[in-house]
Amino acid sequence: MAARFLVTYHVRASAETIAARAQAIAVEQSVEMPLEAIDTASILRDIVGKVADITDLGTGVFAVRIALATATIGGDGAQLLNMLFGNSSLQDDVVLADVEVPAGLARAFGGPRHGIAGLRRRAAAEARALTCSALKPQGLPAERLAALAARFADGGVDFIKDDHGLADQSYSPFADRVRACAAALRGHRTRYVPSLSGSLDAMRAQVRLARDEGVDTVLIAPLLAGFSTMQALVAAFPDIAFMAHPSFGGAARIAPDLLIGKLFRLLGADAVIFPTHGGRFAYSPDTCRRLAETARAPLHDLRPALPVPAGGMTLARVPEILDFYGPDTMLLIGGSLLLARDRLTAETAAFTARVAAHRYR
Amino acid sequence: MAARFLVTYHVRASAETIAARAQAIAVEQSVEMPLEAIDTASILRDIVGKVADITDLGTGVFAVRIALATATIGGDGAQLLNMLFGNSSLQDDVVLADVEVPAGLARAFGGPRHGIAGLRRRAAAEARALTCSALKPQGLPAERLAALAARFADGGVDFIKDDHGLADQSYSPFADRVRACAAALRGHRTRYVPSLSGSLDAMRAQVRLARDEGVDTVLIAPLLAGFSTMQALVAAFPDIAFMAHPSFGGAARIAPDLLIGKLFRLLGADAVIFPTHGGRFAYSPDTCRRLAETARAPLHDLRPALPVPAGGMTLARVPEILDFYGPDTMLLIGGSLLLARDRLTAETAAFTARVAAHRYR
Repeated sequence: MAARFLVTYHVRASAETIAARAQAIAVEQSVEMPLEAIDTASILRDIVGKVADITDLGTGVFAVRIALATATIGGDGAQLLNMLFGNSSLQDDVVLADVEVPAGLARAFGGPRHGIAGLRRRAAAEARALTCSALKPQGLPAERLAALAARFADGGVDFIKDDHGLADQSYSPFADRVRACAAALRGHRTRYVPSLSGSLDAMRAQVRLARDEGVDTVLIAPLLAGFSTMQALVAAFPDIAFMAHPSFGGAARIAPDLLIGKLFRLLGADAVIFPTHGGRFAYSPDTCRRLAETARAPLHDLRPALPVPAGGMTLARVPEILDFYGPDTMLLIGGSLLLARDRLTAETAAFTARVAAHRYR
Repeated sequence: MAARFLVTYHVRASAETIAARAQAIAVEQSVEMPLEAIDTASILRDIVGKVADITDLGTGVFAVRIALATATIGGDGAQLLNMLFGNSSLQDDVVLADVEVPAGLARAFGGPRHGIAGLRRRAAAEARALTCSALKPQGLPAERLAALAARFADGGVDFIKDDHGLADQSYSPFADRVRACAAALRGHRTRYVPSLSGSLDAMRAQVRLARDEGVDTVLIAPLLAGFSTMQALVAAFPDIAFMAHPSFGGAARIAPDLLIGKLFRLLGADAVIFPTHGGRFAYSPDTCRRLAETARAPLHDLRPALPVPAGGMTLARVPEILDFYGPDTMLLIGGSLLLARDRLTAETAAFTARVAAHRYR
């Protein structure tokens, strides 16, 4: 039998309808046509999705595992997403819950090129959790953002990422911003992580420009850029570490641990940002824990990706968050540090000190 | 005041909480930080999203209109999506319902380069609805797909699109497929519409190869490719018409009439495929009607895009579907024609004859 991999969908259905619905998804996510119209035995055998098993999860939802043919992916990131959830994403009774990534797919995509170890090297931090803040608001000119970056760096933060809303706008064009921020951080260990935007051509030019300025880590939103775009960048710039932003990630229709913890990593994200529980977003503690564990769990030969909980975090929550996620984590506090305004450097220093001094329960 | 445009969100909330929730979305989709931490008056005035109005829709849902700053888009497709729904897509109480596209954005993106008139010219059909079928199943080798294309063409269909699952797989590589299908259709008016996949680089090479083979219309899934990728292709190939496929379009979290009828068109889709009511997908007749009307409605200087209802359509439904959508429509029937197997050409001919002969009620 040709190579297949297992995909789990959570499907709202009744006990009477689930078998037919599962079979319909298997067809939708492979050949998308009536099987009676297929007269080629090898396609029915090797290409059409097959329902592997169905488990009643209670509450009217069933876990349906479908074996899809690896050959349908053709090694392309967007096509992976297309085969996993292209048309089914348009049907409101189904959630993409998990993918059991086979070794062949892991090799084809390659996963993080740097992973947790590569990010730790950048921060010269062997064991403690890493720290990150965010440059915002958009609308500030490049030199104001650079001044902010310098103050964060004085507070000892490991990484400073662009707000994911920063693109190539007139008020702080990418080139001006990167040059100004890189200059502001020269002599610091703190890494500036600029946000890529635009087409693959634009992003490639941005990475080159950033690399010329000494940048070795960049931010990308895979669902906005397109999975194939990210895949191409990761392959083109093996010396650059990639942080993935969950923007446009949808709620609940793709399990966040799968999308952010597994698929972003598969594409090559070295660090994955996600909205942690208790902040502005609806992810539960269980979802967050699974996401972080998935990003770090053994997966063939892939390097682990660093989980980056974010989204409404505060200094007061640092101990709780560290105990929850453990040290192989990067804490990202943005707006809450910026609230300190004149005391930004001191607040950042308190943040980094608290992370460094934390004793895990 | 700086240029702004209005975005409508549908938000599940109570009468007590909606004002605060609306304000939170306005901040999330602009500066994404506490306003108290912003000390620049021009940003508070020109960049931060502003709640324009809130309307109780009943059933616990409110329509919230937020004025976003046009400057935050920077003319980029993915950044448009980022500012419309980047972080809010991660929150499960909010749906992106509509965007009032200002003339400046319409000019910046440009919309369809060919539109309904350009597609009608390709089909030499001035008034009737256009017809389309789909090449599948994936797994067939290029020459079998080409033979299928010839039989569809003998039935007189206007366009034959690749199944959106056809990418650049080993069993029918893009180059082989396009050469074979283009050759099979030479001498026919029928247009072959190959599906683009992979990175921008790969897609550009695919369009060039297809154009060399006489192809003038291609298929792309904007949500898989990335909006910026599609934007770059539309700009690079002004002679090519683009059909947009809704794959990975999600259910319900972005109103389909907005996403497919308006945003795909804004990006330059000349035709937009969508799952019509009564088939395998959950869109209601109202949603479908709004989507089709949106694609064709006047919008600044943008050409109209051709609505392409699809997804489980049958020959028997042609009259009903034509009466529903009117003649500025392309009917796409895939699997149901393929069910005819040996009678494929005759079934296709019956399809095209029924469309040509239809008298609208």
